[in-house]
Amino acid sequence: MDIRYLDAVRARNPLVHNITNIVAAHFSANGLLAVGASPIMADSVEEMEELAAVSAALVINIGTLASATVQAILLAGKAANRAGVPVVLDPVGAGVTAFRRDTVEHLLREIRFAAIRGNAGEMAQVAGVSWQAKGVDAGSGAAALDEIAAAVARKHNTVAVVSGAVDYVSDGLKLAVLENGTPLLPRITTSGCLLSAVCGAFLGVAAKDDYLHAAVEACTVYAVAGELAAQGLRPTQSGTFTTAFIDSLGAVTAQQVAAAARVAWREVPQTGATA
Amino acid sequence: MDIRYLDAVRARNPLVHNITNIVAAHFSANGLLAVGASPIMADSVEEMEELAAVSAALVINIGTLASATVQAILLAGKAANRAGVPVVLDPVGAGVTAFRRDTVEHLLREIRFAAIRGNAGEMAQVAGVSWQAKGVDAGSGAAALDEIAAAVARKHNTVAVVSGAVDYVSDGLKLAVLENGTPLLPRITTSGCLLSAVCGAFLGVAAKDDYLHAAVEACTVYAVAGELAAQGLRPTQSGTFTTAFIDSLGAVTAQQVAAAARVAWREVPQTGATA
Amino acid sequence: MDIRYLDAVRARNPLVHNITNIVAAHFSANGLLAVGASPIMADSVEEMEELAAVSAALVINIGTLASATVQAILLAGKAANRAGVPVVLDPVGAGVTAFRRDTVEHLLREIRFAAIRGNAGEMAQVAGVSWQAKGVDAGSGAAALDEIAAAVARKHNTVAVVSGAVDYVSDGLKLAVLENGTPLLPRITTSGCLLSAVCGAFLGVAAKDDYLHAAVEACTVYAVAGELAAQGLRPTQSGTFTTAFIDSLGAVTAQQVAAAARVAWREVPQTGATA
Repeated sequence: MDIRYLDAVRARNPLVHNITNIVAAHFSANGLLAVGASPIMADSVEEMEELAAVSAALVINIGTLASATVQAILLAGKAANRAGVPVVLDPVGAGVTAFRRDTVEHLLREIRFAAIRGNAGEMAQVAGVSWQAKGVDAGSGAAALDEIAAAVARKHNTVAVVSGAVDYVSDGLKLAVLENGTPLLPRITTSGCLLSAVCGAFLGVAAKDDYLHAAVEACTVYAVAGELAAQGLRPTQSGTFTTAFIDSLGAVTAQQVAAAARVAWREVPQTGATA
Repeated sequence: MDIRYLDAVRARNPLVHNITNIVAAHFSANGLLAVGASPIMADSVEEMEELAAVSAALVINIGTLASATVQAILLAGKAANRAGVPVVLDPVGAGVTAFRRDTVEHLLREIRFAAIRGNAGEMAQVAGVSWQAKGVDAGSGAAALDEIAAAVARKHNTVAVVSGAVDYVSDGLKLAVLENGTPLLPRITTSGCLLSAVCGAFLGVAAKDDYLHAAVEACTVYAVAGELAAQGLRPTQSGTFTTAFIDSLGAVTAQQVAAAARVAWREVPQTGATA
Repeated sequence: MDIRYLDAVRARNPLVHNITNIVAAHFSANGLLAVGASPIMADSVEEMEELAAVSAALVINIGTLASATVQAILLAGKAANRAGVPVVLDPVGAGVTAFRRDTVEHLLREIRFAAIRGNAGEMAQVAGVSWQAKGVDAGSGAAALDEIAAAVARKHNTVAVVSGAVDYVSDGLKLAVLENGTPLLPRITTSGCLLSAVCGAFLGVAAKDDYLHAAVEACTVYAVAGELAAQGLRPTQSGTFTTAFIDSLGAVTAQQVAAAARVAWREVPQTGATA
């Protein structure tokens, strides 16, 4: 796989504005710093438009959503849209409560997202597909994950990332199936939130017509860094893994990612398309 | 000691809804994941009742209390009471300010708690016993800790956990004295908050008439995991211990806990009881 | 260098009240515990005056500032001023948005700060000097950092700490230039926030006419602990460093700091002074 943006993230240290939650804030900031980005966490309505205008990317995470934050998200998201700054949505626990479901729908109507990243349950909700989620964990369902990715991408004209043991990334036309990763990643809290933030960093240095590749590359860098960090660890060593993973996000090279990447690309069958 | 629930926590991954503070949120979520539970942190009034109804346990922590959160706590606590979901209270810094003292009293009037866990100073406040606390640390006082545990349990018809170098757990009839642990645990911030959350996870898989045992088991698993993690560390290595403790919460087995447990049970003398 | 306060922090465990942000809260609390202080994080208006009165120091951090918090900061700051409790300001991202700039100016008018600590971009903003900041990172500018430190100190009658590869600490009359440290410190998020909190702990046990020395000592202890923790690590190992740094804050001795300190003192040229 062609690694185009990792070195650019490290060279340009893109400012990534995160509207995030009290669980993810520290880990996301640390992970962004490790990979080479410059994080700022802020969610006051007073400064949303100003921050969106100077940031390379905006990452919106509804992990511990408060109604007061929704207004800030809308201000920041619209300002980023006006400024051409890519906006990433992490719809944490999207299907768990009516409040989250309604808020996600509201955000999807008002803001144009360059990418949406979530686990199977969250993305099934965004796609409008039936799914049995369990809190903020992925849960299980009958739909194929690749179809959920493609459905979210087409429905919301975005790059959709369905994270899990295998990641599915699609812009509705192409689909990448990414088999890298480690079972230790879902054992550390907010590892999905950090991945969304890292997607923001990569989109923040990418060409606007290359967000699909940037998202796939972000997921691949993340998963390969996880693999390297997990080497020699037992499945229960989530504490040790957390530390090693931050180290690995800083150390992993484009060469290592290119060599380890297990990414397959395919075309998405177009509904109603003539043969 | 009979270890009844550790394997059940790992097999059933109980959804534990935490209303918690900005200091504890990430560590509590990570520790709950490590021990086998499925954490969700949320405190918006809009989703409290819905979350309480789908959770296996609700853990209320007033560590960085805001008045807006009190309404969310009341909604969640009452919904959990109606649904038969066990509610755990962590009265962080209960005696430090009038605001916390009044809030704890308010919560105790409105919500039925399956368990209340705090350090000596906090539990003395809940019991109505005089005590000299120091911020959110335990402080010192004249009352016997076993009597504070029994007093809280009787006064609030709950399982009371007084944490410290020795833990005292009581339902007002029986009292467990738990001597496991390590001086490194109080050197890492919010280790008490995580213990309250772990109590929630164990109560969430326990029979309703067995919450006393579930709380004692949670404390024992926690303390033994701490002992294992502290092996070979110096008293100042709180950073290394934090990492090792998360690993240990995931790795510790029922057999290890049963073998290492130093728990003594006794009857609580009943005030006004005839001989 | 004469190390006067490190052992006092460990002996007296000063209660440090932090009004801080969701990114820094856990790491600051853990670091304060490690160095020997007793942290409490709280920002509800209801308890600000009560907490300020019982604390040894108050540390105000505007990292994820909300307008509701400003009122709490004002209440706490004024109560601390009345009680003679030293107040430390960390003007995180002071120049990034009008909201932060205006809030910092508001706080500087209403509260008397014993110390103000920030990176070059933040302190340039507080001094009213032109600077190109980047989010919450330091950025770059033409002014000499020693002059910024002296200017902040004189303008606000405080001890000013400009943190960076070299730290500059001044009360407007004297200036300390501190060359200890490690490039790994700015690679972990909120390492500046924790340093501000540690300054609070040292001022909290210092004589009121010795805050300049207390701030220099806090920075030196911090930087030397960082050097010790960084030994043998690669520049990308920010995860491992975080753990080692917490250990080191607990283990570092006054003797080690005194031996390793590279602090040079000089007089600040007084503007308009006659020869």
